[in-house]
Amino acid sequence: METRKISDVFGKPIQVINVGLESMAESVQAQGVPVTRVDWKPSPGDVPYLHTTRTGVDIDAANQEAVSRLMQARPTLVGMGLAKDVIPGYHNRLILHAGPPITWERMCGPMRGAVMGALIYEGIAKDERDAAQIAASGGVEYAPCHHYHAVGPMAGVVSPHMPVFILENKAFGNQAYCTMNEGLGKVLRYGGMGPDVYAHLKWMQTELYPVMERAIASFPDGIDIKSLIAQALHMGDEGHNRNRAGTSLLLRTITTALIATTADTAAVIRVIQFIDKNDHFFLNLTMPAGKAALEPAEGIEGSSIVTVMARNGTDFGIRMSCMPEKWFVAPAPEVKGLYFPGFTEKDANLDIGDSTVTETAGYGGFAMASAPAITQFVGGTPQMAVEATLEMYEITFSEHQGFTIPVLGFRGTPLGIDVRRVMETGILPRINTGIAHKDPGIGGVGAGLTKAPEKCFRDAFEALRAICA
Amino acid sequence: METRKISDVFGKPIQVINVGLESMAESVQAQGVPVTRVDWKPSPGDVPYLHTTRTGVDIDAANQEAVSRLMQARPTLVGMGLAKDVIPGYHNRLILHAGPPITWERMCGPMRGAVMGALIYEGIAKDERDAAQIAASGGVEYAPCHHYHAVGPMAGVVSPHMPVFILENKAFGNQAYCTMNEGLGKVLRYGGMGPDVYAHLKWMQTELYPVMERAIASFPDGIDIKSLIAQALHMGDEGHNRNRAGTSLLLRTITTALIATTADTAAVIRVIQFIDKNDHFFLNLTMPAGKAALEPAEGIEGSSIVTVMARNGTDFGIRMSCMPEKWFVAPAPEVKGLYFPGFTEKDANLDIGDSTVTETAGYGGFAMASAPAITQFVGGTPQMAVEATLEMYEITFSEHQGFTIPVLGFRGTPLGIDVRRVMETGILPRINTGIAHKDPGIGGVGAGLTKAPEKCFRDAFEALRAICA
Repeated sequence: METRKISDVFGKPIQVINVGLESMAESVQAQGVPVTRVDWKPSPGDVPYLHTTRTGVDIDAANQEAVSRLMQARPTLVGMGLAKDVIPGYHNRLILHAGPPITWERMCGPMRGAVMGALIYEGIAKDERDAAQIAASGGVEYAPCHHYHAVGPMAGVVSPHMPVFILENKAFGNQAYCTMNEGLGKVLRYGGMGPDVYAHLKWMQTELYPVMERAIASFPDGIDIKSLIAQALHMGDEGHNRNRAGTSLLLRTITTALIATTADTAAVIRVIQFIDKNDHFFLNLTMPAGKAALEPAEGIEGSSIVTVMARNGTDFGIRMSCMPEKWFVAPAPEVKGLYFPGFTEKDANLDIGDSTVTETAGYGGFAMASAPAITQFVGGTPQMAVEATLEMYEITFSEHQGFTIPVLGFRGTPLGIDVRRVMETGILPRINTGIAHKDPGIGGVGAGLTKAPEKCFRDAFEALRAICA
Repeated sequence: METRKISDVFGKPIQVINVGLESMAESVQAQGVPVTRVDWKPSPGDVPYLHTTRTGVDIDAANQEAVSRLMQARPTLVGMGLAKDVIPGYHNRLILHAGPPITWERMCGPMRGAVMGALIYEGIAKDERDAAQIAASGGVEYAPCHHYHAVGPMAGVVSPHMPVFILENKAFGNQAYCTMNEGLGKVLRYGGMGPDVYAHLKWMQTELYPVMERAIASFPDGIDIKSLIAQALHMGDEGHNRNRAGTSLLLRTITTALIATTADTAAVIRVIQFIDKNDHFFLNLTMPAGKAALEPAEGIEGSSIVTVMARNGTDFGIRMSCMPEKWFVAPAPEVKGLYFPGFTEKDANLDIGDSTVTETAGYGGFAMASAPAITQFVGGTPQMAVEATLEMYEITFSEHQGFTIPVLGFRGTPLGIDVRRVMETGILPRINTGIAHKDPGIGGVGAGLTKAPEKCFRDAFEALRAICA
């Protein structure tokens, strides 16, 4: 099909004012037409002010309770175990994945790759072809990590014999789970497949896991992850895509325990070297820390606070405190980012992963002002990083007393996305994230920035409106 | 003596305009008199523009050479040894100290305490009384660390059997030396004395030193301290009074080497725990890294770049590249700061230590914009931290290509204090520093902010003027 240029259509010099989608502006600009961009935001008058449910609950009071629980949370690393042994309700044919519910048929490439890889890792499939058949056969049950108190970065695939961190929220007693971070590049969570991927996962299961498990078990009160996150936010991390400080602080915290609890010095050295070479290691603790903090804020009658924000690479889904079981879903957005050598945006899958739990819990992209150096990894400028955080105060109900941003005068991070404020302001949650190759088997190709889709919040708002006075 | 109020003297309501010393404004204001503050700065017309020496050397070109050498520097931790064995020209009755040259008679309390403690540590004196007699006897030779390619925080005392880090500037081949950091509180470098202080120093000599020495020796190319400083500046450190990131990165770098080179697991654990509990550990590497970087910039004909800035607690001294042997000295300033519980500014000694080598080399107080969280330790606000760095660009000749500040859009740190620009602008180098108790034996009492005294720069400027065309 031949595509005509805009200027040909109009037959004279034109100027374009673009309202809304940036991609439309870009395609016009690429044809040499000057474009004036106008950010679309709804007029405040368009959106009704929801303040009380039909049952008489004050929404602000409900939200105050939700953010209060979030701030009281004390997520603590208390142990490790295999998924099948420690995640309540787990069974041997269950595979968890990131984001809202999805069938094998609708799964994106990297998620399919991760599922197939997990089936091979488990010894259920003998090779990729076999794995694809089993995955599609109906013999595997798929469920969101979020349905099992778990979270997973990128594809977020958890299978029965994967070791997971156990995070306990000491203020409320609930637990959350997450696998260990594999490193960057060709790894399972980015959909990577192949003998090296499986061998690495086996090493994580047979050496990294027992060494880490013994060290963690030697802390009588566990390891205070909330404190490590708070410190890392003063050290240039935001807890999602920059975890160099958090990983450093974690190593400082556990190194002597690693040495004291494992006699095999060579194994201890391999474990420390692996963590030292992977600044994202701490991500798989900031994520379940967020999950452990958020769950007690679920199910508060009348609360419009977002308690889950997650993507499966096909759909983006959110859940709202007052309707804790319901997913509000929209197509996953594209990610604008920086690519590893040899890859471009043509290779990119849509936004994927549960790592948006960090933004939901008041850090990650919401704390970007703390992490100006992250822009070297995800793109943008330090000024944009500050602006991102300032903008998020417009859509959050509160500020986190436990997580502060030095450069903003130790102001608390934006906490508690309020579905009402998203709709009132037209400002969407900002996310910084990794980028997976769109095809199964390849792995990570970069990192970048995106925003949550408006439709999720519109639908949640309408659901809230339906129960309001 | 009775003090009369200003308003009584004048007998009517008055207003005061204060030019210069803040303390004067405060004392007037305390009497209920409104004060308008006017920052004194010399008019540019007051200060002649020095551009060429009488021998025809272009000062800007000379300064460009100086900062170019500073930027090329590659300070690398290559080993450790006892001061008497590795510092060229060391002898058994030599004690080094911070700052410009000083006699025992003029030494401040904390420096006397550190000298006495060092004599006991060395086994030269049997107790404090004995040490004071020996120290005053003339049997000890005192010299600035800076005369021996060394630097020392606070009192900066180095004695023959103290282990020192050896930093080699791989770009120029010169070496610099510094003792290991003892931790905060009652420690020798703050003038602390007592059995616990000496026992701790002995542990540092007999366990910490050999364990560290073996680990460092196992790096065939040494440990790149410039790279660690550059990373730490992206992680909320400034490399003088905030070294949490640097200490974390150092631990990440050497932990596996510690384990691999010392079989005694308990000793390795004690060493790691000691470093982990002392976020200032890395300071004693940022300081000799600065010294190693600065020495090749000394002795450049016509250069007005400051190559040494150091305090002995009585005097503040600077040296200038074109007159490398000459100290320009003024009384040490007071420090405004935050005090540990139980101490106040009445306990404070004047500004002390060689740690201003960090500012001289382009980080420390000059990079405070990188370290907004430092204000919790030294006072001030995050906004002031940014302003401090911005102000220092006014008196430096260049910006460091290797050390960048994310929040300023990755701008290079202010590098190379130019004596001419200090005099032209009236802006004095900003310093953040520890505070020692003024009496010998007690130790550290806080941390704070100060500025280098104007007289040092005025005298250096006059010396430069005398050789100019």
